Amino acid sequence: MPRKILIIGANAAGINAASAARKTDREAEITLITDEEYPAYSRCGLPFVLAGDIPSFENLIIFPTSYYRMMRLDLRTDTKAKTINPRGKTVLVEGKDEKQKTMEYDSLILTTGAESFCPPIKGRDKDGVLSLRTIEEGKHIHDAMKRAKKAVVVGAGFIGLEMAHAFAEKNIETTIVEMLPCCLPAVLDEDMADLVRREIERHNVRVIVGKGVDEILGDGRVTGVFVAGEEIPADIVLLACGVRARNELAEKAGIEMGATRAIKVSHRMETSMPDIYAAGDCIESTDMITGRPTLSQLGTTAVRQGKVAGINAAGGYSIFPGVLGSAVTRIFGFEVGATGLTESRARAGRVGLKTVSGKITAKTKPEYFPGGKEITVKIVIESESERIVGGQIVGGEGVAQRINMISLAIQKGATVWDLGKADTCYAPPVADTWEPVALASELAGLKIRR
Amino acid sequence: MPRKILIIGANAAGINAASAARKTDREAEITLITDEEYPAYSRCGLPFVLAGDIPSFENLIIFPTSYYRMMRLDLRTDTKAKTINPRGKTVLVEGKDEKQKTMEYDSLILTTGAESFCPPIKGRDKDGVLSLRTIEEGKHIHDAMKRAKKAVVVGAGFIGLEMAHAFAEKNIETTIVEMLPCCLPAVLDEDMADLVRREIERHNVRVIVGKGVDEILGDGRVTGVFVAGEEIPADIVLLACGVRARNELAEKAGIEMGATRAIKVSHRMETSMPDIYAAGDCIESTDMITGRPTLSQLGTTAVRQGKVAGINAAGGYSIFPGVLGSAVTRIFGFEVGATGLTESRARAGRVGLKTVSGKITAKTKPEYFPGGKEITVKIVIESESERIVGGQIVGGEGVAQRINMISLAIQKGATVWDLGKADTCYAPPVADTWEPVALASELAGLKIRR
Repeated sequence: MPRKILIIGANAAGINAASAARKTDREAEITLITDEEYPAYSRCGLPFVLAGDIPSFENLIIFPTSYYRMMRLDLRTDTKAKTINPRGKTVLVEGKDEKQKTMEYDSLILTTGAESFCPPIKGRDKDGVLSLRTIEEGKHIHDAMKRAKKAVVVGAGFIGLEMAHAFAEKNIETTIVEMLPCCLPAVLDEDMADLVRREIERHNVRVIVGKGVDEILGDGRVTGVFVAGEEIPADIVLLACGVRARNELAEKAGIEMGATRAIKVSHRMETSMPDIYAAGDCIESTDMITGRPTLSQLGTTAVRQGKVAGINAAGGYSIFPGVLGSAVTRIFGFEVGATGLTESRARAGRVGLKTVSGKITAKTKPEYFPGGKEITVKIVIESESERIVGGQIVGGEGVAQRINMISLAIQKGATVWDLGKADTCYAPPVADTWEPVALASELAGLKIRR
Repeated sequence: MPRKILIIGANAAGINAASAARKTDREAEITLITDEEYPAYSRCGLPFVLAGDIPSFENLIIFPTSYYRMMRLDLRTDTKAKTINPRGKTVLVEGKDEKQKTMEYDSLILTTGAESFCPPIKGRDKDGVLSLRTIEEGKHIHDAMKRAKKAVVVGAGFIGLEMAHAFAEKNIETTIVEMLPCCLPAVLDEDMADLVRREIERHNVRVIVGKGVDEILGDGRVTGVFVAGEEIPADIVLLACGVRARNELAEKAGIEMGATRAIKVSHRMETSMPDIYAAGDCIESTDMITGRPTLSQLGTTAVRQGKVAGINAAGGYSIFPGVLGSAVTRIFGFEVGATGLTESRARAGRVGLKTVSGKITAKTKPEYFPGGKEITVKIVIESESERIVGGQIVGGEGVAQRINMISLAIQKGATVWDLGKADTCYAPPVADTWEPVALASELAGLKIRR
């Protein structure tokens, strides 16, 4: 009898789990169910469709139907998992026709993802208050943007900033409101976030930090928001206040949750129930630096966890090493990226590290080669071990790959001197002799030694 | 009495030694002497001036006169060191006026660099046979290019390829002749070099590998070359056959040479003579992977060794960790970079490693985001330890920073699984969810486990 592998969810984690399961077990019956109309599309691409960088939402659908045929994956869209019966190893599902049916599994993989968190702001149910998670929601925003003149984005995380960029690209007057004291507060220290804010403001987007939205105004349709007594007019209010793991299905089935209220898993992506795996935005990850539970909820984490879950669910062996939260984006012509801990998070009570940081602003090419762009690199180290624990970069180009280098440095326990003396490469059209990441690292080191 | 630091040579290693010495000892008297007319310019920029990417040779002079004043560095151009007296701690120098004088030192730093190696080809003394090491030579080539219709480049190393690119940019019909079986034979395996050759040929440059130049033809002025019986016409023959350490001065002074015939130094850049340091193209380096002596002769190595030499010469403490030979360039619209050992060098008798490699061609951005470019990544690992020992990348963009990530992986002893499961970052405009470096690494790992 071929192994029955059932995957609930068919996005980043789900499709990677399915592909890895197929490569591990060529005979298995692999079924993916999703309650969405579209399968396996890039959520991270949505803001860039709205900005006009990507022609259409349909471009985001990563795999053509032929891929599912070739990999022999049975994909069922518009299909909702209602309940899991872990003892009987079945899942009750409901199709578009509202007919319910029971599906058997030998291995079950939960990749149920996350949903937008909607803060309890007065007036949040008005027309024109939108959030962005699915293609459907993207299409609503796309329609709303055609008529809109003014937008308020609530939340200055990655999606908030990307949406502010999209609005600005379409000549919509935009204001960002962030309750915490700076942009990208989860991944940047305030000094680095200030660079981001200044770049955004140069593009005529207003940024309000350290203040919350008290009320969303309007009579049925949104007309604006109240922020600390000021009325800011808006045709669109985009809520980008983070996401929450979708774990009701798992919880109802008695699967254990972690300290972060997401599904708890082992290194092999096993849940507390036999033969049930989970991966992606719905699970709790482990921070590689602190060893503590954390929520990663990034596309890169989802695909890598999905692969591990798929291999194990199909009888193979693979482990997931934990997360560092490496993330990047490009908006308003500049890039911003980060990995590991910010200095403020590292120093905070729960983690409680003594840190030192080094920061440098340098160009990506030698001064004499036209076209180099400025980047600012900040490296955070733990003082006693002198190990790298975080990196943040804001600048014109080459941020993503530099973040990856710092991420690997953290993963491998590199000290400030390892990174400061790294054997980097150089050629005038692509890089300077002194790599800014190495220089920032050295500066951090010198602060300890002095 | 302030410490007297004398530096012979004022380019990459020399100027970095001087700057580091000044930061270490604010009172020292620091003097740099160079036999060139121009101080501290970027040699690596020369081909890109000739290609028209950089407006003029003068742009390559990295530090203005004001820098030397600010750092209180006594720079003497057109000044030649004749002999070193290590016992008396003096150097006999000769200025432009041919007057000789004796200079005292407490610490001496040799950054005498390298010179072009000119192979013993018949006819190499003809007019129009050129090489590129100095601004003067660059200017000669620049003049020759104004009249030239056809060029032959002898040697397909980095400078050879960059010069072929410069000639092609100026519509000079160009042929590259490389004696070894492929382009960039020191840093690429043949499979990766083939990608480079194909890209170059797409730009109408002819590439002949595995054949040497038998004779340079012409009556006084060069008219062509003979390659395996074929006459290839040329107005310019550019010899780019590597460089040789300039170590006569050190050798005459009784300073010990290494197995590579370059100056032997400690981790602190100390030569065999007390208080004499050396750095850059004139010294022997240690390969971080094999522990063996090697010649690095790269700009990045020179600046980093110069800094270490400068700190130590000024009474500080700094060590140099060895080299991996990370190198990169950008020609004909694509980038090529490498670090560590190629598979062929790793397997060769002297090193004798059993290796496995993984290779992948992928795009730098998701398929759905316009503008992504193809890159091919090859990762070489040692079979038993499963550690990364080398990486090669050819492609449209983002090569330099990926090479740096692989270089750090080698430096920190990362295994194929460490790199294969690296926590990389992603956003549609800058990177895909699966980083090609990680995928290539995983492919290498799977070859071992199967």
